[in-house]
Amino acid sequence: MPRRAQSDSSCVAETIAIGSELLVGGRSDSNSLHITAALGRLGIEVRFKSIVGDDQADIVNVLKTAVRRAKVVIMTGGLGPTVDDCTREAIAKTTGRRLARRKEALDGMTARLAQWRRTPNKGQLRQALIPTGATVLPNPVGSAPGFSLTWKDATLISLPGVPREMEAMMKESVVPLLAAQRESSKHARLKPITRLVFHTWGLPEAEVDAKLQGLIPKGAPIDLGLLASPMGVLVSLTTTPRQSASGELLRALADGIRTRLGEWLFAEGPETMEEVLGRLLTEQQLTVAVAESCTGGLIGHRLTQVPGSSAYVDRGAICYSNRAKTEMLGVPAELIAKHGAVSKEVASAMAKGIRERAAVSVGLSVTGIAGPGGATDTKPVGLVYVGLDGGAGDAITREFRFHGDRQVIKQRSSQAALDLLRRWVIGRGTT
Amino acid sequence: MPRRAQSDSSCVAETIAIGSELLVGGRSDSNSLHITAALGRLGIEVRFKSIVGDDQADIVNVLKTAVRRAKVVIMTGGLGPTVDDCTREAIAKTTGRRLARRKEALDGMTARLAQWRRTPNKGQLRQALIPTGATVLPNPVGSAPGFSLTWKDATLISLPGVPREMEAMMKESVVPLLAAQRESSKHARLKPITRLVFHTWGLPEAEVDAKLQGLIPKGAPIDLGLLASPMGVLVSLTTTPRQSASGELLRALADGIRTRLGEWLFAEGPETMEEVLGRLLTEQQLTVAVAESCTGGLIGHRLTQVPGSSAYVDRGAICYSNRAKTEMLGVPAELIAKHGAVSKEVASAMAKGIRERAAVSVGLSVTGIAGPGGATDTKPVGLVYVGLDGGAGDAITREFRFHGDRQVIKQRSSQAALDLLRRWVIGRGTT
Repeated sequence: MPRRAQSDSSCVAETIAIGSELLVGGRSDSNSLHITAALGRLGIEVRFKSIVGDDQADIVNVLKTAVRRAKVVIMTGGLGPTVDDCTREAIAKTTGRRLARRKEALDGMTARLAQWRRTPNKGQLRQALIPTGATVLPNPVGSAPGFSLTWKDATLISLPGVPREMEAMMKESVVPLLAAQRESSKHARLKPITRLVFHTWGLPEAEVDAKLQGLIPKGAPIDLGLLASPMGVLVSLTTTPRQSASGELLRALADGIRTRLGEWLFAEGPETMEEVLGRLLTEQQLTVAVAESCTGGLIGHRLTQVPGSSAYVDRGAICYSNRAKTEMLGVPAELIAKHGAVSKEVASAMAKGIRERAAVSVGLSVTGIAGPGGATDTKPVGLVYVGLDGGAGDAITREFRFHGDRQVIKQRSSQAALDLLRRWVIGRGTT
Repeated sequence: MPRRAQSDSSCVAETIAIGSELLVGGRSDSNSLHITAALGRLGIEVRFKSIVGDDQADIVNVLKTAVRRAKVVIMTGGLGPTVDDCTREAIAKTTGRRLARRKEALDGMTARLAQWRRTPNKGQLRQALIPTGATVLPNPVGSAPGFSLTWKDATLISLPGVPREMEAMMKESVVPLLAAQRESSKHARLKPITRLVFHTWGLPEAEVDAKLQGLIPKGAPIDLGLLASPMGVLVSLTTTPRQSASGELLRALADGIRTRLGEWLFAEGPETMEEVLGRLLTEQQLTVAVAESCTGGLIGHRLTQVPGSSAYVDRGAICYSNRAKTEMLGVPAELIAKHGAVSKEVASAMAKGIRERAAVSVGLSVTGIAGPGGATDTKPVGLVYVGLDGGAGDAITREFRFHGDRQVIKQRSSQAALDLLRRWVIGRGTT
């Protein structure tokens, strides 16, 4: 990261995740990732994150610390209906306010529960308790309202810990509220933090790094980040609100990344591989069917995560046994006996078999050894074949040797198969 | 969580994760989960977690706060070879120590790099800088050593952020060091933190809560926790090091949970639904095949996450289109036309069809509306039918009405189907 310019505490934010399950429960706080990204777009920089249990004294301690160093404090969790949920009480105690049942909080909750044909129970009535002077933030997807208040020149915001509820309330209430605040303040000139992300598949991290050497001009107020995972290497460009980076520079660097990464770049921003495929298949009016052995249904699951995927996904065959490969896909038993179920030949026959049976534009297949068992002298764990059949002799097979445990090998295999389909659809579109 | 006994700050710990990628990079701190579990086994309770970027002033701020409220502070990250890595400097500044190159730190690093046929470069030499008076903690798997020092009656420990290195150093240096400290102190009597977890499916959180009312005797030093997710409600029993809980009491409470939750309890500890099923199906030498519509392959994917699942999973049919339901499973087109693809009748025919075609012990099916599109006047998003066919007229169908987005409805549907299979296999085993 580049050295930082003089801090301006007025654009410093802190997140506080509240919940004992985040301490001893083996659970990570993921809400702060969403909040950090949303505040960054407003030019507000999350520089501290705290996590604390459902303990009133500990929450008071953390909240007092946060207000000393940040001007925007966003708390998640501890607003549930049980007595363990003491965020409301801790905030009231810290700020010296009373808790009182607020009509607008109760009305919103009652209306929401009525949709589910329920009425508030005793615990839920506690959720309508709001510190005096606070603004109620409605919860469009759950029963617990949130609230915001100003204390010691800081804006404190309390949201439920359920990610879906927190995200909806960030979008509908918190971001507009903070945007309006900043609009009316001297900080309106602050640059939003821009973060661009680029998703690659198929290159090791060191090769992505090598391709990007020298891209960022010396001293440019932009960070280049690389992050490797089983699903590929993510590349990011991040600006800082403390030094301004011109939009032009950022655009030039983004173009540089696109050019240097080329075909290895499969998506940008929040788009997933399966969403990219959905877009490409829809554009070209193609339909697909899959034949999965070692991935066990993961490719079908991923393709059907996309709303509207029923328009282009016809079916899938999870053919775990050899008999299933023969019965569901017409792979000749002799072919399996001769080459083994994990072979180029069987991958190819599986892709052709599913395409013909489903009468779709393209068939995609995977067969491999996910481990930990199943390896032979010549076929190690991680050996995976991907097949694609587009009809009329248009067929591809690819061999991969993946490292990792069973779950990682399944993930990588699904990504390799979907990327092969992506490249095929793109190639088809340009000819 | 029940109200806590008077805090004993001598067994309070805080973790500090350092790294700008943990703020804006979209990356969660997972090191603290490992540290919390390891300290818990020593009777040391992590009650605060902080996350801060690679900014010296911010690290000093966070460290000073930590020392005010915890007696064991474990920092991870910021020990790398570049100038951005400033944890060493921040600790020296906070504690008023000098940084000096330490022979034992350099020797360890040089030896490690020699194994890789490398010599320390300029950046790596920085990694041998250690605050005066600190104890060097060797890194058995990487180049950066860690260190520990005592300041203001607190033990500060600094470790690299690479999980593999941090874990090795926790095991080889930090746990022995803290265990020895506690052995020689008045806190040797502290009990390790024990945590038992129980996984339920099918009951709303409020009903689980109601079933467990009054289980924990008043004042017992054990926390009962509930945590709802799309995959069910998790129940936990956690002891605290601040008061001792007898093993007998814990065992009695665990038995109480088992009795009260009964058939709703599908797993304990780290075991997953699919692992439970793998065990049950193997014990009874049963084989299974699945027919999935709205889950799109998720059930097959989950079943095949378990090593060795090829012994009992024969195949799956992902029949997204109506034509696929007829062609792959023999569901009569007239049945679909009459009742709709999302109906009890079609779920039943799908389960029977896959069982017969695969010649397995049991067929499992799901058909539903995952949304956001596809709803009709009589069939809302979230309407899901699960079917099971065990042959010889042994058939079950269940209707569900799930809330949530497409991904949540797919998850819940898969859990409902697998739980129906679990109950069926158990029922079969007891007759």
